[in-house]
Amino acid sequence: MSLKPVFVVAGLGAGGGTGASSARAFVKEGYSVALIGRRASELKALEDDLKASGAEVRVASFAIPSYGHADVASAFAQIHSRYPSNTHSLRAALYNAGNGVWKPFLDVTPEDVQLVTQSNIEGSFAFSHHVLKAFKNNSIDPVTGKRGVLIFTGATASIRGNVTTSAFAAGKFALRALSQSLAKEFGKENIHVAHAIIDGGILTPLSKGRRNDPQWEQNEDVRLNPDSIAASYVYLAKQDRSSWTWELDLRPAHEKW
Amino acid sequence: MSLKPVFVVAGLGAGGGTGASSARAFVKEGYSVALIGRRASELKALEDDLKASGAEVRVASFAIPSYGHADVASAFAQIHSRYPSNTHSLRAALYNAGNGVWKPFLDVTPEDVQLVTQSNIEGSFAFSHHVLKAFKNNSIDPVTGKRGVLIFTGATASIRGNVTTSAFAAGKFALRALSQSLAKEFGKENIHVAHAIIDGGILTPLSKGRRNDPQWEQNEDVRLNPDSIAASYVYLAKQDRSSWTWELDLRPAHEKW
Amino acid sequence: MSLKPVFVVAGLGAGGGTGASSARAFVKEGYSVALIGRRASELKALEDDLKASGAEVRVASFAIPSYGHADVASAFAQIHSRYPSNTHSLRAALYNAGNGVWKPFLDVTPEDVQLVTQSNIEGSFAFSHHVLKAFKNNSIDPVTGKRGVLIFTGATASIRGNVTTSAFAAGKFALRALSQSLAKEFGKENIHVAHAIIDGGILTPLSKGRRNDPQWEQNEDVRLNPDSIAASYVYLAKQDRSSWTWELDLRPAHEKW
Amino acid sequence: MSLKPVFVVAGLGAGGGTGASSARAFVKEGYSVALIGRRASELKALEDDLKASGAEVRVASFAIPSYGHADVASAFAQIHSRYPSNTHSLRAALYNAGNGVWKPFLDVTPEDVQLVTQSNIEGSFAFSHHVLKAFKNNSIDPVTGKRGVLIFTGATASIRGNVTTSAFAAGKFALRALSQSLAKEFGKENIHVAHAIIDGGILTPLSKGRRNDPQWEQNEDVRLNPDSIAASYVYLAKQDRSSWTWELDLRPAHEKW
Repeated sequence: MSLKPVFVVAGLGAGGGTGASSARAFVKEGYSVALIGRRASELKALEDDLKASGAEVRVASFAIPSYGHADVASAFAQIHSRYPSNTHSLRAALYNAGNGVWKPFLDVTPEDVQLVTQSNIEGSFAFSHHVLKAFKNNSIDPVTGKRGVLIFTGATASIRGNVTTSAFAAGKFALRALSQSLAKEFGKENIHVAHAIIDGGILTPLSKGRRNDPQWEQNEDVRLNPDSIAASYVYLAKQDRSSWTWELDLRPAHEKW
Repeated sequence: MSLKPVFVVAGLGAGGGTGASSARAFVKEGYSVALIGRRASELKALEDDLKASGAEVRVASFAIPSYGHADVASAFAQIHSRYPSNTHSLRAALYNAGNGVWKPFLDVTPEDVQLVTQSNIEGSFAFSHHVLKAFKNNSIDPVTGKRGVLIFTGATASIRGNVTTSAFAAGKFALRALSQSLAKEFGKENIHVAHAIIDGGILTPLSKGRRNDPQWEQNEDVRLNPDSIAASYVYLAKQDRSSWTWELDLRPAHEKW
Repeated sequence: MSLKPVFVVAGLGAGGGTGASSARAFVKEGYSVALIGRRASELKALEDDLKASGAEVRVASFAIPSYGHADVASAFAQIHSRYPSNTHSLRAALYNAGNGVWKPFLDVTPEDVQLVTQSNIEGSFAFSHHVLKAFKNNSIDPVTGKRGVLIFTGATASIRGNVTTSAFAAGKFALRALSQSLAKEFGKENIHVAHAIIDGGILTPLSKGRRNDPQWEQNEDVRLNPDSIAASYVYLAKQDRSSWTWELDLRPAHEKW
Repeated sequence: MSLKPVFVVAGLGAGGGTGASSARAFVKEGYSVALIGRRASELKALEDDLKASGAEVRVASFAIPSYGHADVASAFAQIHSRYPSNTHSLRAALYNAGNGVWKPFLDVTPEDVQLVTQSNIEGSFAFSHHVLKAFKNNSIDPVTGKRGVLIFTGATASIRGNVTTSAFAAGKFALRALSQSLAKEFGKENIHVAHAIIDGGILTPLSKGRRNDPQWEQNEDVRLNPDSIAASYVYLAKQDRSSWTWELDLRPAHEKW
């Protein structure tokens, strides 16, 4: 296949988390990368940082105001124009967006519900729509037997509702349902859809700041390294057609669960 | 308790289904009933029908244009005014709304996603908010040990995404997440939250018309009778505080699953 | 149906628990009762106690040395002889046996594994075999649409393995698998198979002695009353053919889960 | 670490399946290999075959008459003697044994139950006991953060009981329970326990003979390649301490599920 493979990732947060690590990992695998996120300056910083990692690295970022379907559509229009189909093919995608809201239920506002719904459902449906349409035009990769791979990042709240997680779990359960439906519908077209349940705290600039706990940061047994999550996403992308994983969980060695 | 118990149900469809049967069953248990639905004339017909079942039956219906949170709030404002707290207490509630959308994923429109999201998530959060606030003001019923019971109607799609159910399952997974979170958060306040997985076709005027299959209608082994579902909801409402069910499944004897 | 219905229950422990409460509840529903257990004197005491509850009550107990398949077969031979098929029909059954073993894994002995396996698997397969063979000879009850109902008692460990529950959870997961297989295989013959997940501590003479905590005993919000569990089993037995439950969970109102 | 790592695998069947592929894959990773199985001649053939793959390859096979705990203990006594702890350390293990029994329930014999129970429960408890005791003596590998990794092979029947799988599912549910309990108990000792759900037909000499369907054999989209399963086991073994997977599923691209 002479078309250059493209990896598109939605959900970069402040950079330095699972999305950013995944972008870096797929760059190392030879992919061009398209970054979608809501924070323009952090996106640009990540884009610059990835570009600095090698002369041949092709990265572009697409800031959107929200995960509403129109904004997501607009990002894909730009992606298709930036990576035209005569030279590039969208081959891998990660939907990593999704707001967390942790509150006693009676404090959850309609705006909270709307935000969680938009990022976890409206955005994931829109993202999947554009990704899967692009995948369907791809030839089957002879090594992996895939037209493309679409990965979703889930959380503990994907499989368990709990006190203070009513909104977050609603969004994450819904995302998991979408991923399972898509895995079943598109597997027979050699499109691989997977879902990762991240069951623990991830080491990111945000979580570092929030926790301010150097012991937690340094103890590799108690928090997830986003590079390790990214390594599992690369593994999923490489699984050959005879043995695909829809779902795996990931947690630190010492996590209580 | 001298306050008259009120049962509020959202999701009556065209009448004749689970919502209507549940209203009838709780009327028989001595509850006043508040009906919420989107079809004004069908709601009124059901209201009249229930009233005709006995001179002392108190029923009121509240048509709303959508399950958006503002419309749901407006219904509850009317309910509280119709059943004032010095004479009535909201004791039982059923969230039975939720649009089904069955389509290949690439045919699912943003409007489909919006409709499913609104009825299964926005509406259920709003409904639960008003119900739980009302329940918290109730005393604990000495027989059941409850301040109130809130039941959600789920479906096969609550636990399994499948080809053509991406949108429907997203909504139903989310509803299940909400119900589990609420069960955990409010159990310790003696509020009982339950979730029923209806795993099969229900005999309703709508399904009769759609199927046009007298054999299916007459064979009690192959479809759910909404009165039987309602009986299970009454059973849940009566469970005493020592042994509450969060989730049960219901399917016809001959259902393949 | 002029044949007198028989309820057979395996697993009575020291009496006073779920098995005993279920026997009492089905007696009230008009069943003759056959009790299977390993403690002969406690069995006899329960038999006498049930008989004392009414002149017309028919109860018989069958002590067995183990839940090995030969011992279970021998109990059923006696049951069939005590309740001959020209006057009685086995209509309901509860498999309530199953040893709990809570130990760090490396302390679990081969004997522990054997005991858990025998009571949860060997015994449940043998019990189900005899019960289902008997059910197949029954006519369909016109009210419930059943030839019979077979209920299994599960636990938290039925759906979650945990530290110190390796052996217990292995047994309870296996029992749940059996119940699901049977529900699917025999539903189409109008035999109802159900599984109850008891997610909390049950108030029994044994647990009272072990805990020695009067507050726990008296607080109905924190422990399961075996009579309430039994009430749910009677409810399952009465569900009509259009809406059968395979699985429900039961826990106290204040249980943390 | 100067001690040579050892991989022990139980369950080789007739060779050519998941167990054999895994042995081969771990040999390539530099492990010495200990093979446990019930068919002495097939075991020896696999041993010879692996040895032929390289001069430095160290393989030993240990035929046992059954997965009874005494037989498993005897295999480990020989393994420890063959790979003494001053030169070797047991670092990875795969429990791949487990008899499948597919029969209508009433045809399942006590012997079937016993066979399934022995291979899936008695054997897996014994195997895990010896493996975990050995792991506890290991130092933590600096790269992966592990003392060792223990993997279990599950099946569709691990999460779903079905018509004709009562015995098989009982065994596989139990194995899954064990794996989850162990993952939780031993994670905090940096021992990684994982469970793979193989959801589809595996291409083995046995399945080839049974199906006699060249199309199925040649179509990589419809059956699992045991080498691909083995690749996922190697991936699990390499996951670093920050992000361990307890469970993943594996199925062919076109599998209907």
